Amino acid sequence: MNITDNWLVGFVDGEGCFFVGVNKNKTMKLKEQVIPEFRIVQHNRDIALLYEIKKFLKCGVVTYNRGKNNSSNVMEFRVRNLDDLSTIVVPFFRKNRLLTIKSISFNYFAEIIDLMKEKQHLTVTGLSKIKFLKGKMNI
Amino acid sequence: MNITDNWLVGFVDGEGCFFVGVNKNKTMKLKEQVIPEFRIVQHNRDIALLYEIKKFLKCGVVTYNRGKNNSSNVMEFRVRNLDDLSTIVVPFFRKNRLLTIKSISFNYFAEIIDLMKEKQHLTVTGLSKIKFLKGKMNI
Repeated sequence: MNITDNWLVGFVDGEGCFFVGVNKNKTMKLKEQVIPEFRIVQHNRDIALLYEIKKFLKCGVVTYNRGKNNSSNVMEFRVRNLDDLSTIVVPFFRKNRLLTIKSISFNYFAEIIDLMKEKQHLTVTGLSKIKFLKGKMNI
Repeated sequence: MNITDNWLVGFVDGEGCFFVGVNKNKTMKLKEQVIPEFRIVQHNRDIALLYEIKKFLKCGVVTYNRGKNNSSNVMEFRVRNLDDLSTIVVPFFRKNRLLTIKSISFNYFAEIIDLMKEKQHLTVTGLSKIKFLKGKMNI
């Protein structure tokens, strides 16, 4: 397999998802936890390709997808680690621009990652800003 | 927009479909018509990208997708013309290999296009062979 930057951009334009979850969490000072995630979901027949993508990006995990389908036939490559998102995923897609309108969601995602790197998700104003940006994603 | 060969391969690995329909048609000698099709389906918010793909490949049409959803929000880029499939689409994906297991369906598709170029879909044996190959696609 020969993954290239452009191939990955095309594949993510089709199959990738930039997502930010804001979950209730009593252990957090603000009682809410921000969980950003980049993922690519595939049928498990293409699990080898997901591992190739993990190797190519040098981060992330390949695991079962617990989405709507909740089937063991559906796998995902996923990056949740903030450092990996901040130093690998976001710079990659800033350099190699998506061609679909998914690029708009990516831009908000990248802005949220920047805020989180500055620990602004731990402040009332920062969390509020993140929720505002999140509301503009994937619509 | 800057479509490249590799981007298109990645996007088609995600969103493309190689399909062969065999429809009843009383006007055909064998009463069946073979309709091969390469398509990329997208929400109409990315219609500009479908037109860019059409321009890049120099063939095909952008039109409404009459799939399961049958919604006017869903568009497709589609190539059905046998000459275009034979001289543009098949050579492109033979040169630029898909990385998902969709490549297996593409190989059967390409074989069917080769048979059709030799007009074998108009013979009993050829049509039977095409149906056999079609049965191995997209499973």
